[in-house]
Amino acid sequence: MTKYFNDIQQVKFEGGASKNPFAFKYYNPEEVIGEKTMKEHLRFSMAYWHTFNADGSDPFGAGTMLRPWDKFQGMDQSKARAEAAFELFGKLDMPYYAFHDVDIAPEGDTLRESFQNTDQMVAVLKDYMKASGVKLLWNTANMFTNPRYVHGAATSSNADVFAYSAAKVKKGLEVAKELGSENYVFWGGREGYDSLLNTNMGLELDNLARFMHLAVDYAKEIGYTGQFLIEPKPKEPTKHQYDFDVATALQFLQKYDLSDHFKMNIEANHATLAGHTFEHEIRVARLNGALGSLDANQGDPLLGWDTDEFPTDIYTSTLAMYEVLENGGIGSGGLNFDAKTRRSSIDPEDLVYAHIAGMDSFARGLKAAHNLRTDRVFEDAIAKRYSSFTEGIGLDIVEGKVDFKMLEKYALEHDQIKNESGRIELLRSTINQYIFEA
Amino acid sequence: MTKYFNDIQQVKFEGGASKNPFAFKYYNPEEVIGEKTMKEHLRFSMAYWHTFNADGSDPFGAGTMLRPWDKFQGMDQSKARAEAAFELFGKLDMPYYAFHDVDIAPEGDTLRESFQNTDQMVAVLKDYMKASGVKLLWNTANMFTNPRYVHGAATSSNADVFAYSAAKVKKGLEVAKELGSENYVFWGGREGYDSLLNTNMGLELDNLARFMHLAVDYAKEIGYTGQFLIEPKPKEPTKHQYDFDVATALQFLQKYDLSDHFKMNIEANHATLAGHTFEHEIRVARLNGALGSLDANQGDPLLGWDTDEFPTDIYTSTLAMYEVLENGGIGSGGLNFDAKTRRSSIDPEDLVYAHIAGMDSFARGLKAAHNLRTDRVFEDAIAKRYSSFTEGIGLDIVEGKVDFKMLEKYALEHDQIKNESGRIELLRSTINQYIFEA
Amino acid sequence: MTKYFNDIQQVKFEGGASKNPFAFKYYNPEEVIGEKTMKEHLRFSMAYWHTFNADGSDPFGAGTMLRPWDKFQGMDQSKARAEAAFELFGKLDMPYYAFHDVDIAPEGDTLRESFQNTDQMVAVLKDYMKASGVKLLWNTANMFTNPRYVHGAATSSNADVFAYSAAKVKKGLEVAKELGSENYVFWGGREGYDSLLNTNMGLELDNLARFMHLAVDYAKEIGYTGQFLIEPKPKEPTKHQYDFDVATALQFLQKYDLSDHFKMNIEANHATLAGHTFEHEIRVARLNGALGSLDANQGDPLLGWDTDEFPTDIYTSTLAMYEVLENGGIGSGGLNFDAKTRRSSIDPEDLVYAHIAGMDSFARGLKAAHNLRTDRVFEDAIAKRYSSFTEGIGLDIVEGKVDFKMLEKYALEHDQIKNESGRIELLRSTINQYIFEA
Amino acid sequence: MTKYFNDIQQVKFEGGASKNPFAFKYYNPEEVIGEKTMKEHLRFSMAYWHTFNADGSDPFGAGTMLRPWDKFQGMDQSKARAEAAFELFGKLDMPYYAFHDVDIAPEGDTLRESFQNTDQMVAVLKDYMKASGVKLLWNTANMFTNPRYVHGAATSSNADVFAYSAAKVKKGLEVAKELGSENYVFWGGREGYDSLLNTNMGLELDNLARFMHLAVDYAKEIGYTGQFLIEPKPKEPTKHQYDFDVATALQFLQKYDLSDHFKMNIEANHATLAGHTFEHEIRVARLNGALGSLDANQGDPLLGWDTDEFPTDIYTSTLAMYEVLENGGIGSGGLNFDAKTRRSSIDPEDLVYAHIAGMDSFARGLKAAHNLRTDRVFEDAIAKRYSSFTEGIGLDIVEGKVDFKMLEKYALEHDQIKNESGRIELLRSTINQYIFEA
Repeated sequence: MTKYFNDIQQVKFEGGASKNPFAFKYYNPEEVIGEKTMKEHLRFSMAYWHTFNADGSDPFGAGTMLRPWDKFQGMDQSKARAEAAFELFGKLDMPYYAFHDVDIAPEGDTLRESFQNTDQMVAVLKDYMKASGVKLLWNTANMFTNPRYVHGAATSSNADVFAYSAAKVKKGLEVAKELGSENYVFWGGREGYDSLLNTNMGLELDNLARFMHLAVDYAKEIGYTGQFLIEPKPKEPTKHQYDFDVATALQFLQKYDLSDHFKMNIEANHATLAGHTFEHEIRVARLNGALGSLDANQGDPLLGWDTDEFPTDIYTSTLAMYEVLENGGIGSGGLNFDAKTRRSSIDPEDLVYAHIAGMDSFARGLKAAHNLRTDRVFEDAIAKRYSSFTEGIGLDIVEGKVDFKMLEKYALEHDQIKNESGRIELLRSTINQYIFEA
Repeated sequence: MTKYFNDIQQVKFEGGASKNPFAFKYYNPEEVIGEKTMKEHLRFSMAYWHTFNADGSDPFGAGTMLRPWDKFQGMDQSKARAEAAFELFGKLDMPYYAFHDVDIAPEGDTLRESFQNTDQMVAVLKDYMKASGVKLLWNTANMFTNPRYVHGAATSSNADVFAYSAAKVKKGLEVAKELGSENYVFWGGREGYDSLLNTNMGLELDNLARFMHLAVDYAKEIGYTGQFLIEPKPKEPTKHQYDFDVATALQFLQKYDLSDHFKMNIEANHATLAGHTFEHEIRVARLNGALGSLDANQGDPLLGWDTDEFPTDIYTSTLAMYEVLENGGIGSGGLNFDAKTRRSSIDPEDLVYAHIAGMDSFARGLKAAHNLRTDRVFEDAIAKRYSSFTEGIGLDIVEGKVDFKMLEKYALEHDQIKNESGRIELLRSTINQYIFEA
Repeated sequence: MTKYFNDIQQVKFEGGASKNPFAFKYYNPEEVIGEKTMKEHLRFSMAYWHTFNADGSDPFGAGTMLRPWDKFQGMDQSKARAEAAFELFGKLDMPYYAFHDVDIAPEGDTLRESFQNTDQMVAVLKDYMKASGVKLLWNTANMFTNPRYVHGAATSSNADVFAYSAAKVKKGLEVAKELGSENYVFWGGREGYDSLLNTNMGLELDNLARFMHLAVDYAKEIGYTGQFLIEPKPKEPTKHQYDFDVATALQFLQKYDLSDHFKMNIEANHATLAGHTFEHEIRVARLNGALGSLDANQGDPLLGWDTDEFPTDIYTSTLAMYEVLENGGIGSGGLNFDAKTRRSSIDPEDLVYAHIAGMDSFARGLKAAHNLRTDRVFEDAIAKRYSSFTEGIGLDIVEGKVDFKMLEKYALEHDQIKNESGRIELLRSTINQYIFEA
Repeated sequence: MTKYFNDIQQVKFEGGASKNPFAFKYYNPEEVIGEKTMKEHLRFSMAYWHTFNADGSDPFGAGTMLRPWDKFQGMDQSKARAEAAFELFGKLDMPYYAFHDVDIAPEGDTLRESFQNTDQMVAVLKDYMKASGVKLLWNTANMFTNPRYVHGAATSSNADVFAYSAAKVKKGLEVAKELGSENYVFWGGREGYDSLLNTNMGLELDNLARFMHLAVDYAKEIGYTGQFLIEPKPKEPTKHQYDFDVATALQFLQKYDLSDHFKMNIEANHATLAGHTFEHEIRVARLNGALGSLDANQGDPLLGWDTDEFPTDIYTSTLAMYEVLENGGIGSGGLNFDAKTRRSSIDPEDLVYAHIAGMDSFARGLKAAHNLRTDRVFEDAIAKRYSSFTEGIGLDIVEGKVDFKMLEKYALEHDQIKNESGRIELLRSTINQYIFEA
């Protein structure tokens, strides 16, 4: 029985040649790729906020999207949103979802009232989850929208805000435990600065670390065993956000002895705003044992803000899935569509088109990446390129058997260097072939 | 008989499944797409400078590419480069090429000697062209490398440089006539400024217009009928180049009464440096009757300089070819690979891989674009979107039958506006499908 | 008698050494600079929307600024805002202001009701203006916030929106006439596209031109003689705005025969988003007789969106004022502070600090620019640099007495070019000195 | 006795009102600022490569600067450059300089010959240093220009290049010891990647760490006690450089247990290319005890490459010096002008103007920064802003006396948050005043 999307049938796989816009062309959940099904590889998740709470407003314009579930107010609205959400999860066979606390329940006039609202809605969601089998990929606390966070949350200049934020995350961890959330995310939207001139960066970062340790302690205390994730972003809304990119977040974790407790939730659009490709950020996390989860969206390379577009770029989805496969899978993470339909895509069916677009894009990318690995395209090229480190002086270097004097002696005898082509154009051409023939 | 590429066979179409890296996978020159063959649609051209003169040097490093044709000096080197060029044109069945004057012959100690060198090499090239059937897409004068252009060429603060530049372009037009060049290009690499503080922008732009008029006059005088092209670029090497983008170049042409004589040579990487997509720039030119030719390359969206990479992005090649098809073809222009192999792609065979990559990418893009048009994907969406302008008040607006008072009267009666979704996500998803299924 | 800013005295000039944060340090309105007073040169204007309507909300956060005048609703709120506005104009001795229609009066449920609200508030403002002597620099119609503009206003795909927009601008011109507005501004916040895929750019631009012609006709009809201004911006909220920059807007005006009726309202932050300096855009306008007015703000060069910060960069204010002085003044335009206090500057007194910051910055810039001109720093450097165009072959070029053959003959005899240094570092050092010693 | 700059007198302090372009206006070396002289605070250094080796060439143009010392070849050229260098150091009273190995001596056909050339020139320089009192701020090995580094140096895919690089750094450390260099710098110009597709990032980073440890070991072995510095840069010439920014470099050092041995050499233009302000990067280093030295230059915020301009922006020099003063000085580091005159500033005197511009800019910035500190402008604002952490719950947080349950209890009782303005506009206005009144 459906209510909000009743003119849309269950979305099924019909293959690339289908002209049905309400069908998957490439995402066939039960298709086996390597040792897992597509559904197991991809672990798709819907972002509650963009899909059920947002209305298309932007800094220069009001909301354009009139949702039937938004005709209600307060808790009724929250319940209608939950109903719509699980209806759409079902239509798309979406296995996971993710939310901020304020997405699922309205803030009250007091913190206590906010908690009560949350508790009510958690019970509602729990029932829906049980009935549908949909699981919670991650939850988090929104500590950026309310004016109280104007100077930050854990890094606020106001100690009361630190305390308030702690209370919110405490509740968030309890919710995570209650709903079996596989991860708990920290995106520090206001944890940064608008001006260095009035900022005590040292105290703010120390406080951020203190906050993280307190969260780790409390999770342990209540027995919440989900994975903690940091979501890097370089800027916006702040001029500078402390978790600028994966490397910066890792530096913070190392410095404050938090590395054992956190992995990364990497967003494509945040990566490009920081000057990196999505695959770069995933690889940095992977090489540091810190690949947690992915926010699957894309930015516009010619725009300087977070456009949060649905991911349709096949190169990015292919290379992201390549890194995930190299990582042995995404673990307890998933591919969360932290994406919104363009402001002019005002209909509920646009939500369906958009998620199909994203899911198909990653399904095709998964297949291309799998084929590239099966054929050892990059592996062989890389093995050949670095073969000098598997023997002779190269092996000695890797095994730590040399010092500068030995290397100098070797170099003086081998100073007419011969390098080989890196073959970048051939590799790019090969990727195109794998994408087109996937 | 081959000499410089003798280990590379003639490149033939073997289809997407082929593992032969020296074969076309998607570019099948004789395949008919619509009313023309692929070869007629695409009119590929090789850039002499990147492929035969460049050596992989960059601002931080010396040349990495030791070409066998560069073991010679002076005119012998120029002749060897020409021999290598026509050998490679033949291997790839490249129908066109393009050059700057200094690419084909060395500058002499005097202008007269430079001209003599040019004349000698033009005769050599003419023979090769006759024998091979390869044609000249465009030629131009390099007025940016030599230190004399430090303050510009036609916009130099030094009148002697204006005169010198005029002599160079005069010779260039004569060469264009002699070799039957289908176009003559102006890229104003130094026509701009490094600082407004010492720049008389008014005089410089007036001089640039004077220069262009003199060129038009001289072409007419000698009966050269090829198309004049301006190649916009926003910056680099200058801080600001006067031909910033297509719209800016059109403004210049309109202001100085030059619009009838010039079209645009649009480069993908220049477009993105200016903050535009390639397809945007092509469309702006197309709508102004000014689409001349294309420099087919791509930039890196995360880098702020002209990387001149070989074009492998299928979205860009598809949308560029879509605009070309909408334009009724590229006319006397072509797709010139103004692209260089990465500095680490040091082998001659990388030149072959790279051109195959680019040609295949545009062949696939052509097919996708053709299919999109055949199925009227965008046409139908657009016709529906703007249908309100084909009747009633919309038709009156378009036909110029209204004034503000009539519109106000109408608006007061029709002020509860109903808009329809723009369906951007669905269209993007559809493009993916056309690309994958092309 | 004051009400909303009653703890703030009239802001007076106290000079640079003053520690009073509520005093001008450099802006001394009656100080004579050249032939005019500072106040006459600078023609400062306050932006109604940022200062009296905005609340500090951003895409990730709710409003932080609780203004006493916002405790009211509807028309009462509009009246309170007007009262606050004229109180603050008085405190700062602000000679001009600027507004969008929706800034001064609430939109009604119908267009007719909106017009009635506007009319009421125009009468209120007219009284305040008469009493205070404050004048209206420009007004405009907001055609971007309401969801009806989701696809554009004059360039909407929906003809009803074109009509609605026409009705709004008709009313705007009547208001301009009623209040003696010195200019009428068009900023096309939604006149552009989010995707080329669903956009009929040709029709949209034709419609935009039709709209502009209708506006010109109507102004003539009602005898409104203020200057029409286009405000270029490259993007945001659209992916691409048609009035990308000054050159693009000029191209549009030329193409559609509108050049005689429009000048430019140039905003610093819009300039940098388009890849230009503020002074570049002003100069391009100046050289085309199209310098209309300035939106005095600044962006953050490391952020990719319109931050609309108060202008404090002394280099930009100096070079902007230099161009204004070269233009013989700003004409009917002014320096409008299209700027907002940072989201964390939540107090009404921050509005005062911010305007003082901007006014002092431009006052100091005016003095530095005036001194640079008095000492002919740039003039002499430029005259010397381009002196070759005042005699001999250079003069012949400028006077149109040459052709390519004559230039070639000259060049063959003068081919050993000698250039002179451009002295950029010395000029920059000199500017610093003028700024520090102003 | 002078030779290359004999028309330029010793540059002396003449004060801001002086019209002599060959005089300092603000840099008065013996003026006492706080507890040190300007000369002691600023520790200026000249960059050998830009000033004595570079010729104004860029990716699109040949050298424009014909230096009298470059009329020689080979070792004679190197000696002439050294002579010119110490002559110019003397004219400007420059206390320090910095070089890459290939700046001071030509590379030979063999590594051995290169070392011999280096040794000869080190002896020459040592004599000049002794005679003049000029000291070496830092030296380094150029491991990016020669084609052998096409795939990196310590991160090359070719083990022979690792060995060669080790030999170069070994020699570099010996030279550092011989000349008493106060620091040794690592800028990894090619330590990064052009494409992830062919890159074994894990091996490359491990090798980079191995290389650094070997360098540390060798310095210890020979008793070189200068400070090791890493110079971050995000990209260019590589698409991605491993030492992206300060935080990334710190993460690398922490991960590989190298933190005790390295500090940062921070360049302004590298900072902005990475999306940071110069002062941000300095502060991050400062807070991690890793502020080593500064490369004093500036980029163009509208250009996406390393323009290496002489630093004239007073805001940057003020805020950089503020951080240095907060750090208790720059330690063994200095302000090295890693800057080049614009390609059109072709005369030797432009080198003098440019260094004066930079030195004056930092002198003025130092004074402004000192006055800001003396008046406790930022200190007081910050102390007030964060005062809630000096008592009550805030103090408990900082002292680690709280857990989430205690914070929740507090928050439930203190949930009506009151924040205070951050006063950014006022602070910016205040900085202007301090700059103008310095």
